[in-house]
Amino acid sequence: MTEDVQVIFTPSGKRGRVARGTRVLAAARKLGVDLDSVCGGRGVCSKCQCTPSFGDFPKLGLHVEPGAVSPINAVEERYDRIRGLKPGRRLGCQTEILDDVVIDVPPESQVHKQVVRKAASERVMEMDPATRPVYVEVAEPDMHRPEGDLQRLSQALEKQWQIKGVRADLDVLRILQPALRKADWKVTVAIHDAGDGPRVTGIFPGVREVPLYGLAIDLGSTTIAGHLVALDDGRVLASAGVMNPQIRFGEDLMSRVSYVMMNPGGDQEMTNAVRDAMGDLARQLAEEAKVETGEIVEAVVVCNPVMHHLLLGIDPVELGQAPFALATSESLEFAAREIGIEASAGARAYILPLIAGHVGADAAAVALSEAPQKRDDLSLIVDVGTNAEIILGNKQRVLACSSPTGPAFEGAQISSGQRAAPGAIERIEIDPETKEPRFKIIGNEHWSTDPEFGTPRITGICGSGIIEAVAEMRMAGIVDTSGLIGSAEQVGTPRCEPNGRTHEYVIYDGGEEGPRITVTQGDIRAIQLAKSALYAGARLLMDEMGVDTVDRVVLAGAFGAHISPKHAMVLGMIPDAPLDRVTSAGNAAGTGAHMALCSVKARREIEAQVHQITKVETAIEPRFQEHFVAANALPHATAPFPELRKIAPLPEVSFNTGGSGEDGGRRRRRRG
Amino acid sequence: MTEDVQVIFTPSGKRGRVARGTRVLAAARKLGVDLDSVCGGRGVCSKCQCTPSFGDFPKLGLHVEPGAVSPINAVEERYDRIRGLKPGRRLGCQTEILDDVVIDVPPESQVHKQVVRKAASERVMEMDPATRPVYVEVAEPDMHRPEGDLQRLSQALEKQWQIKGVRADLDVLRILQPALRKADWKVTVAIHDAGDGPRVTGIFPGVREVPLYGLAIDLGSTTIAGHLVALDDGRVLASAGVMNPQIRFGEDLMSRVSYVMMNPGGDQEMTNAVRDAMGDLARQLAEEAKVETGEIVEAVVVCNPVMHHLLLGIDPVELGQAPFALATSESLEFAAREIGIEASAGARAYILPLIAGHVGADAAAVALSEAPQKRDDLSLIVDVGTNAEIILGNKQRVLACSSPTGPAFEGAQISSGQRAAPGAIERIEIDPETKEPRFKIIGNEHWSTDPEFGTPRITGICGSGIIEAVAEMRMAGIVDTSGLIGSAEQVGTPRCEPNGRTHEYVIYDGGEEGPRITVTQGDIRAIQLAKSALYAGARLLMDEMGVDTVDRVVLAGAFGAHISPKHAMVLGMIPDAPLDRVTSAGNAAGTGAHMALCSVKARREIEAQVHQITKVETAIEPRFQEHFVAANALPHATAPFPELRKIAPLPEVSFNTGGSGEDGGRRRRRRG
Repeated sequence: MTEDVQVIFTPSGKRGRVARGTRVLAAARKLGVDLDSVCGGRGVCSKCQCTPSFGDFPKLGLHVEPGAVSPINAVEERYDRIRGLKPGRRLGCQTEILDDVVIDVPPESQVHKQVVRKAASERVMEMDPATRPVYVEVAEPDMHRPEGDLQRLSQALEKQWQIKGVRADLDVLRILQPALRKADWKVTVAIHDAGDGPRVTGIFPGVREVPLYGLAIDLGSTTIAGHLVALDDGRVLASAGVMNPQIRFGEDLMSRVSYVMMNPGGDQEMTNAVRDAMGDLARQLAEEAKVETGEIVEAVVVCNPVMHHLLLGIDPVELGQAPFALATSESLEFAAREIGIEASAGARAYILPLIAGHVGADAAAVALSEAPQKRDDLSLIVDVGTNAEIILGNKQRVLACSSPTGPAFEGAQISSGQRAAPGAIERIEIDPETKEPRFKIIGNEHWSTDPEFGTPRITGICGSGIIEAVAEMRMAGIVDTSGLIGSAEQVGTPRCEPNGRTHEYVIYDGGEEGPRITVTQGDIRAIQLAKSALYAGARLLMDEMGVDTVDRVVLAGAFGAHISPKHAMVLGMIPDAPLDRVTSAGNAAGTGAHMALCSVKARREIEAQVHQITKVETAIEPRFQEHFVAANALPHATAPFPELRKIAPLPEVSFNTGGSGEDGGRRRRRRG
Repeated sequence: MTEDVQVIFTPSGKRGRVARGTRVLAAARKLGVDLDSVCGGRGVCSKCQCTPSFGDFPKLGLHVEPGAVSPINAVEERYDRIRGLKPGRRLGCQTEILDDVVIDVPPESQVHKQVVRKAASERVMEMDPATRPVYVEVAEPDMHRPEGDLQRLSQALEKQWQIKGVRADLDVLRILQPALRKADWKVTVAIHDAGDGPRVTGIFPGVREVPLYGLAIDLGSTTIAGHLVALDDGRVLASAGVMNPQIRFGEDLMSRVSYVMMNPGGDQEMTNAVRDAMGDLARQLAEEAKVETGEIVEAVVVCNPVMHHLLLGIDPVELGQAPFALATSESLEFAAREIGIEASAGARAYILPLIAGHVGADAAAVALSEAPQKRDDLSLIVDVGTNAEIILGNKQRVLACSSPTGPAFEGAQISSGQRAAPGAIERIEIDPETKEPRFKIIGNEHWSTDPEFGTPRITGICGSGIIEAVAEMRMAGIVDTSGLIGSAEQVGTPRCEPNGRTHEYVIYDGGEEGPRITVTQGDIRAIQLAKSALYAGARLLMDEMGVDTVDRVVLAGAFGAHISPKHAMVLGMIPDAPLDRVTSAGNAAGTGAHMALCSVKARREIEAQVHQITKVETAIEPRFQEHFVAANALPHATAPFPELRKIAPLPEVSFNTGGSGEDGGRRRRRRG
């Protein structure tokens, strides 16, 4: 036997020679094999688990003897007794290589692993986190050696982990001394390095056996949705949403920009409000996941440009007027506390790049998660929200725009509208013959007509519910192509009741105890405005791309997963397409935030990608207005929607009496 | 004539060939010659002034024809008319090189110039500032190009100045949009680069013709002294001091640390107090120099470790107990606003490294300005303050310690003590025969016995005044070697009046209108405690160095310049030395801060130097106590002080009656 032995790691295939007696973890480090470790080889964290393989490996040209590695030692025995080791598994930091050997590194022992996440899309999540935990033992201070605690920590990181020149901001310096002393100088340090050098972003006592956590936040105009994510494998431990408290300053983006213009200091009020909400969200997520906010070491935020500026404390006034100049369009990293997030001392926040003055980091996140630029077919991705982001593209070219749909799709500005919460109507069907409805509410799996439905409290209609309600009314002939609700006589149901000079359709009447849930003419108008804006934006991109159809449509957005593709198409929210090519991507912006949180590589990818996206400006494009007007009809005044007509009845009714009623002469003044 | 011509720059001697017609500024940049420019060659800032030389230059091997440079052009004519150009001077950005030429760059046109400052030491100030102003013209936003304002600024800096990858923190992003628009996209940007890459730290409209400003701050336990400095040539435009408001939490450092220990949250109270004072100081300096605080783009702070931690918001409790561990000992840079300094958005603050737990950035600053490590002779540098820093060293070795002298030297804890302000007695002489005093007060150049003295308001005694008073009392035989004040009979003057069981010496009696200014026995004791601590610290370093004498003594400190070396030696504040080898360096810590403000090179120098300084810990050294006790006598119980005896009478009086009077048996219990 020679003094050097050969070791081959699978699945990487990395191989090399090491001195006999070298431990597997040390061999992996020497050969650049991705084998995790938090404790630095002290046999406590168990992250370096691996499986030595024995026998013949003809493809690798190797025969491995049973004694090629040292026998299980006391540390491993103890670990197995307390925590359990899978059969064949060894701790890499305890196992010595005694002869030529093949060692398999299972996915969970890799730092840069690929993990399939149970998201709407069963997405493969690439793990390349900016932050990792490392255990260090720090030298105690000595009166005769004047270095500070930070310097001794830094020396320990260099010696024990080869992490050089670590930085710490003042927040970390503030907690450093008590943290080290309380933990008796043995700590797990969160080290953040997104390519700009290592930085301490958290200090935890002893060997940290649970992961570090991060937040992926989709800051919308109406709701702020967040996930609390484990940074070792990217799993979501808690999800929550809070209302964006800026709503009190204006429901949509432009009314908030106006508020700033009219009220000096209004930007600061809104900045404070949204930062408070970010703090609330962080606390809520931590509580739900049963972790401390101090265990959150990183956050990734996506949002539209106005939210971006207001979150960062930048006056958004320039975004309210042409040429819609951003203060900065590139990604940013800063201390998480600067945007109100309660997390570890030193925790960092990353915000994705913006595509343009109207197309934000949320759209960039959608581009990251849906990646139309990697596909041959032409994808139309619609992120539905108060401000909709629309992306159209394929491998050749990607276009993006935003469209001010307003908050109707989120249940706001709707007479019986409400947030998606238990008691809200989320599904509805109307019998085309009887015009009678049945519905489902959130928190109850039965239709309202089933005996099992019981007598739950019914509170209102949420965003997906109102979309279905209007579409079903259209298919049942209760609403005509112009959006007008017919009278009881015209439609043939007493559920169409007069309401002033128009009519409303009664979905549910709770009697004296209430509530009475109806779809009013005003509700239809609000939905028409919103869906016209959405359609017009998509159509503008199609013009720019020079196409009349798309290969697939992806509905994204915080409640994108809840929208029925068929109903969306009946409304004409999206261009006509075969129904099986209309899918939902769930909260694609949130997914993009989640991906960026788990992977520095993903951040670099989208930072490069945004420069390749052509931004189309809806606000100054005359054709937008034309498309908008033509899109007011249900589903559309001119577009034929052949695919839709194959699957949905669209009765040719008309309730316009030509008289003085609502809407008498307001529609279709122009054609696109 | 060839197409290339030779150009030689003096005094650098840098030479090379450039294309005929190249402008001098461009030639200088090409050849790496240090020729300043703010406007980037637009003929408005005049920083690039230079003098073409004509005739024979045998040493350079060159003959320069009169037509070697282009004639004065319209831009230069206009500049000369409005601002005036010295004879022979040209604007380097306007002057074309037409033939072989020698061009002299005067010191004021160099960025990295050496400037002799009128400080106590006529110091040569090396200019190598971290921040420089650059004028850029930024592209306006274009709806069809989505980059943000920061990206267009960054592109302009790269194109016009070859400054790549400039960073801007959120504070700068907040002001960027209005600043660019108000200035019509033509701005002078303060670019900070201390070796870690360029960063925007200020934005000013148009071509900035006045310099950028910085603050050099010496944060003492009792007073905070600051200079407002022009960053082009390092001159001081304003100096001011404010009291450290932390005094209300404790007069000396240890009582402040105790305050924190006794009062949870007390550190935050003190942090807030000192940051408020930093803000006040910045505003006061700006007002005095008639500049806006927003024109201050940088600050350098020196201070002792406890002040350091409290300023940064770090609990100083570890500094109150062995082993006196610092949270961090290295230099730090961060946003100036983090420590309460009102300055430009993005302004940076730099804090010098600390030498050890008791020997701070102020001592490092003294080491920087006095540089004992560059001298052959052995220097003892004493920075007098509430906490004294003492440095002993030469080229071979440098030692440092700190000593808790208390605030007596600053006039605190003295019965008639006051801050150095108009009306305070600062000089005093006592006739050894008549025991009659004469004195000078701040704001009046005459002795109190001169008719021209008039009848000014006399308010108290400042720090230097009390030192002189006690020393003069010792030389006049009013105080004995043990520090006891004699009675009227013992001394032979009615000015020695009884005060309880001891006596006091009346310097001035304002009658009914007051005040009555005396030196009490308690005052003498306070001075004795302070000076013993100082001497014991110095002596401890001498022991460590293995010497009994030093070659020179430098008195430093905020009022170091005001202390009379002779009187200091009579008190035994400092070890015996030839009087002409005892000098005053003024506020050496402040000078060190000033140097670090003007020069990145100086920062790197002291950062390296502190690692070479051996720290001696006074608090745990038993000999410190011995030295302290022996130093209680005036000048000393055992040290002979031969040099002092050559120049000052030290009458062998003794007022100890051995009875029940104060001090009857308290002194010299031990010998070192």
